[in-house]
Amino acid sequence: MKILIIGANGTIGKKVSEALAQKHDIIPVGKSTGDIQVDISDSASIEKMFERSGKLDAVVCIAGEAKWDNFEDLSENDFYVGIKNKLMGQVNLVRIGINYLNPGGSFTLTSGILADHPVDKTTSAALVNGGLHSFVKAVSLELENGMRINAVSADLVEDAIEKYEDYFPGHTPVPMNKVVDGYKKSVLGKPNGEIIRIVA
Amino acid sequence: MKILIIGANGTIGKKVSEALAQKHDIIPVGKSTGDIQVDISDSASIEKMFERSGKLDAVVCIAGEAKWDNFEDLSENDFYVGIKNKLMGQVNLVRIGINYLNPGGSFTLTSGILADHPVDKTTSAALVNGGLHSFVKAVSLELENGMRINAVSADLVEDAIEKYEDYFPGHTPVPMNKVVDGYKKSVLGKPNGEIIRIVA
Repeated sequence: MKILIIGANGTIGKKVSEALAQKHDIIPVGKSTGDIQVDISDSASIEKMFERSGKLDAVVCIAGEAKWDNFEDLSENDFYVGIKNKLMGQVNLVRIGINYLNPGGSFTLTSGILADHPVDKTTSAALVNGGLHSFVKAVSLELENGMRINAVSADLVEDAIEKYEDYFPGHTPVPMNKVVDGYKKSVLGKPNGEIIRIVA
Repeated sequence: MKILIIGANGTIGKKVSEALAQKHDIIPVGKSTGDIQVDISDSASIEKMFERSGKLDAVVCIAGEAKWDNFEDLSENDFYVGIKNKLMGQVNLVRIGINYLNPGGSFTLTSGILADHPVDKTTSAALVNGGLHSFVKAVSLELENGMRINAVSADLVEDAIEKYEDYFPGHTPVPMNKVVDGYKKSVLGKPNGEIIRIVA
């Protein structure tokens, strides 16, 4: 399988790339790293990325930004950071990527625990993740030629404990192999329109 | 209670307004009807609305647009119709309205069944509704002074059968009194951060 992985150099992306590279042909993509660079908040950049990659069997996105802050400190534009990047960035990956996906191919997007269980300061990030879940369910009804789409929604992951543990009191960190298995389930299995929730 | 109802002249809004007006002081708001007019896609218009209404005990929004179409026909801008109107419009109602809500006051937003159970042609509308659900849960954690927020998420409602039944095969229409009860539960009860799902 020829698999494009956006965010291949990230905390989760590294482990997913290693795992999938064992039996598949990986194209690592990053903002400034990887074989191809992309800014997912920019549709033109997404289009260029697919023109360079050519036809694919799977597109995996483990990237996307949103602003975390107290609700009272978030401006309207702050909400649009996450909307343009993690939310519409991934929607546009599917809108545009559908033309580059082989029959039977899959999209695997990344949302997160905040969709279901937000914590303090995450009004914007939760909104983005919840929007992605419903989008994935909705678009799965319209994909043709055996194409599939799923989202992986992980709780706090082990490799991000240092950066995020203070935001997630009482969240048991998820072992990285379990997170990787979520992506493998989506890419190598048959689910479609599923939110693959990964908790410890 | 002084209750602002945006979309008071709409299919659901009419019935909710009638019910709440029996014991409360209602300010009906609409795009072109009501005592005050507002364009919820425009923050400045929202600010003006609250300046005119003054302090409130409850804000109810039963309004919001999103574009329905085949996924392959929806442009990036088409997605932003719903994002700017029903999604960020309601987020901005809370962002701005928080300054006009009395202690113990409540926000009641409107999402819809598509968040959980999308149907054909609703990738954009589902995204909007799902984003609202997670936003409501997240912002409920940060509200102070006894303020509350909930979303009412109804299935196909009886009074909209003619317009929508072809989109919702097999959805049993919800009697209007049951829909109204969802809004009453949010405004007059004590729930906070709840998605009040109304099905037949």
